[in-house]
Amino acid sequence: MTLNKDLRIGRHAILLLLSDQPAEQMKKLEQSNWKGCVGKVGSMDAHKVVAAIETAAKKNGIIQTDVYRESHALYHAIIEALHGVTRGQVQLGSILRTVGLTFAVLRGNPYINEQEGEWIAVSLYGTIGAPVKGSEHETIGLGINHI
Amino acid sequence: MTLNKDLRIGRHAILLLLSDQPAEQMKKLEQSNWKGCVGKVGSMDAHKVVAAIETAAKKNGIIQTDVYRESHALYHAIIEALHGVTRGQVQLGSILRTVGLTFAVLRGNPYINEQEGEWIAVSLYGTIGAPVKGSEHETIGLGINHI
Amino acid sequence: MTLNKDLRIGRHAILLLLSDQPAEQMKKLEQSNWKGCVGKVGSMDAHKVVAAIETAAKKNGIIQTDVYRESHALYHAIIEALHGVTRGQVQLGSILRTVGLTFAVLRGNPYINEQEGEWIAVSLYGTIGAPVKGSEHETIGLGINHI
Amino acid sequence: MTLNKDLRIGRHAILLLLSDQPAEQMKKLEQSNWKGCVGKVGSMDAHKVVAAIETAAKKNGIIQTDVYRESHALYHAIIEALHGVTRGQVQLGSILRTVGLTFAVLRGNPYINEQEGEWIAVSLYGTIGAPVKGSEHETIGLGINHI
Amino acid sequence: MTLNKDLRIGRHAILLLLSDQPAEQMKKLEQSNWKGCVGKVGSMDAHKVVAAIETAAKKNGIIQTDVYRESHALYHAIIEALHGVTRGQVQLGSILRTVGLTFAVLRGNPYINEQEGEWIAVSLYGTIGAPVKGSEHETIGLGINHI
Amino acid sequence: MTLNKDLRIGRHAILLLLSDQPAEQMKKLEQSNWKGCVGKVGSMDAHKVVAAIETAAKKNGIIQTDVYRESHALYHAIIEALHGVTRGQVQLGSILRTVGLTFAVLRGNPYINEQEGEWIAVSLYGTIGAPVKGSEHETIGLGINHI
Repeated sequence: MTLNKDLRIGRHAILLLLSDQPAEQMKKLEQSNWKGCVGKVGSMDAHKVVAAIETAAKKNGIIQTDVYRESHALYHAIIEALHGVTRGQVQLGSILRTVGLTFAVLRGNPYINEQEGEWIAVSLYGTIGAPVKGSEHETIGLGINHI
Repeated sequence: MTLNKDLRIGRHAILLLLSDQPAEQMKKLEQSNWKGCVGKVGSMDAHKVVAAIETAAKKNGIIQTDVYRESHALYHAIIEALHGVTRGQVQLGSILRTVGLTFAVLRGNPYINEQEGEWIAVSLYGTIGAPVKGSEHETIGLGINHI
Repeated sequence: MTLNKDLRIGRHAILLLLSDQPAEQMKKLEQSNWKGCVGKVGSMDAHKVVAAIETAAKKNGIIQTDVYRESHALYHAIIEALHGVTRGQVQLGSILRTVGLTFAVLRGNPYINEQEGEWIAVSLYGTIGAPVKGSEHETIGLGINHI
Repeated sequence: MTLNKDLRIGRHAILLLLSDQPAEQMKKLEQSNWKGCVGKVGSMDAHKVVAAIETAAKKNGIIQTDVYRESHALYHAIIEALHGVTRGQVQLGSILRTVGLTFAVLRGNPYINEQEGEWIAVSLYGTIGAPVKGSEHETIGLGINHI
Repeated sequence: MTLNKDLRIGRHAILLLLSDQPAEQMKKLEQSNWKGCVGKVGSMDAHKVVAAIETAAKKNGIIQTDVYRESHALYHAIIEALHGVTRGQVQLGSILRTVGLTFAVLRGNPYINEQEGEWIAVSLYGTIGAPVKGSEHETIGLGINHI
Repeated sequence: MTLNKDLRIGRHAILLLLSDQPAEQMKKLEQSNWKGCVGKVGSMDAHKVVAAIETAAKKNGIIQTDVYRESHALYHAIIEALHGVTRGQVQLGSILRTVGLTFAVLRGNPYINEQEGEWIAVSLYGTIGAPVKGSEHETIGLGINHI
């Protein structure tokens, strides 16, 4: 059940966000039969962050639109990533703060054992703060789930 | 109050953990008058994770041992980082899970405006899972505070 | 202080929801001098779930409208039941999910000792999921309070 | 993606706990190609509740012992069920309370669409209260996950 | 249902803790037919804080020892007060912090309407911080429940 | 690092709220080179409570408007105080409750050691309850942060 060192899905999902060349990095990952996408979202509404990631994942064929188990796996990975971003209450505008985030979704098997099947990682990186330009600091989140 | 793009403290704190050459990266950061350290901790007790990071930060002179405001700033950054790692309840063994983490602590001014003074970032990266070898997935956390 | 095995208020509150004949079940409970009601609510707003239950409980004479201590007891039972339904954050639409629930409110003494007085149980059963038909799974919650 | 009305896995998981004849109920469910087990656990340690359920699920062949994705699915279902039981903090003895629970684990496909594959439900029912005999009320929890 | 301005139970419970003459203040409150007590507890274990308050309330006859509904009301008031003290996770030593607290428990009717019956207030005031002398700041909490 | 008994910032911040003569009390505190203000806010929106306190603190010169580190310190003190008020979920109208609060913000050094620098305390006192007149009880919160 050991993690494959070269295929640590969470590490790759974060490096995609911090990279200067996400497109090239993604190509390499696709050569390992992984699927993925990156995107951006800024909002005071947590549900818009969730929606932006779900939409991107469906549009890019990372999850199947009409299979609930895949949406369910992705949803929980998103909410887990939001815990890292919000650190206590999964709330933004309702407690007067806003986020500007890039996100990545990756899908593939990070384990040596093939039986472990596919997993999904959602990473978030950006800023969180008051709805005033510059009144913000960085934030990060990672959610991982079997799919 | 804008963040200095080259001195994003959270980004650097995470890249330190994901780097193959943390020592070299740290040297570069020290040239920007930043202080920092990296370390490792594995435990089923969240308080041991907190203690390992606090001890490392004090030993490496990143915070002053006898000034409570500095400990206070670091403590809250650690707990915020643990939110990303634990995603819901800041608990490990009490709900039957364990972590194996690397951590970094960075201190410096990430803003263009010098008045913003020093900030501290705590980053965590590793695995979380059942206390059974291999039954784990990756996890990450980042806490940032003014100091 | 022991629970009366035949008058376990939480068990009855849930069986009412899962029953094919809630009206008959309620009649039996009323013969034990219990009061109760059942209802339905679907919403993306947690506050509408709270309001629907409070309104039903007042309309059916289960709590006194003009005595705050009774509203207070009911409110906390509802919020506790919502913890079971939401499992982590008492939030629905703000994290892009919706519920379709049946609810029951029961009032009576579940203890052998008469001094224990009256208690109130709120049970919830239904589905939770994305605001897309069929993208949902079941959920349940139970809150119990002295009244 | 609609739920199959006769195969609502959460409803069955709870009815198993509230039934006077769980063994017979389980037989019927097994005729639908479902797997399941029931058990009991009483503790002031949340991690012992988790361990008791995991052990029962493995011993009864409901999840595969050596495939982490199955343990991962079960673990999150257990923690979600514990949210219903604990209603706020997933803590027992650390805030001076104890539980006496029966639990059920069910595995099968509750959806009409076969593509939805297998899901797992963990239900908990019993009492929670002070570590003093009789100072307790009922509690319930349900966690559902794709597996 | 309006609060009686002279009998605001929460305000009195806090003033007792901040007073230089709690004994005299208590006497005045007792003249309004209220019951109450004050005490001290220092610990890294949240359950010891709960136990200290419960024991004091029982010893001083503020709640009846053998009636669970009274223990239940007090327990929830204590946990609510601990939320104010801990501000996020009701945990002390498990996240490496300790408290030194004074507490008060008051019982009486704070409403003009006699039908509102008796309520209980638990107030906490003291310090929270690292298990190092002086590395701490003040903290307060208040829980109120019908009884 | 010991707290200066006469300058316990949390105690003073609460006494300001419970005092019949807040203006006189504030004058005394200003003689110790402390800054502070008091105000009122009633709302079903937590973000309006946050905004009211931030605006008052800026208008009264307690924090510098254009220095993010000061806003950051204040924001976290407010959210911590709201934990005491809300006791579980930092939510008001979204779970059908409202608050009527007075607040105080104090800034100064509560420690004997001058190196500890300035700290900020936010205290909240008032009522919380259903959006129905009189259906409410008292609530309190205190947040303290280094600034």
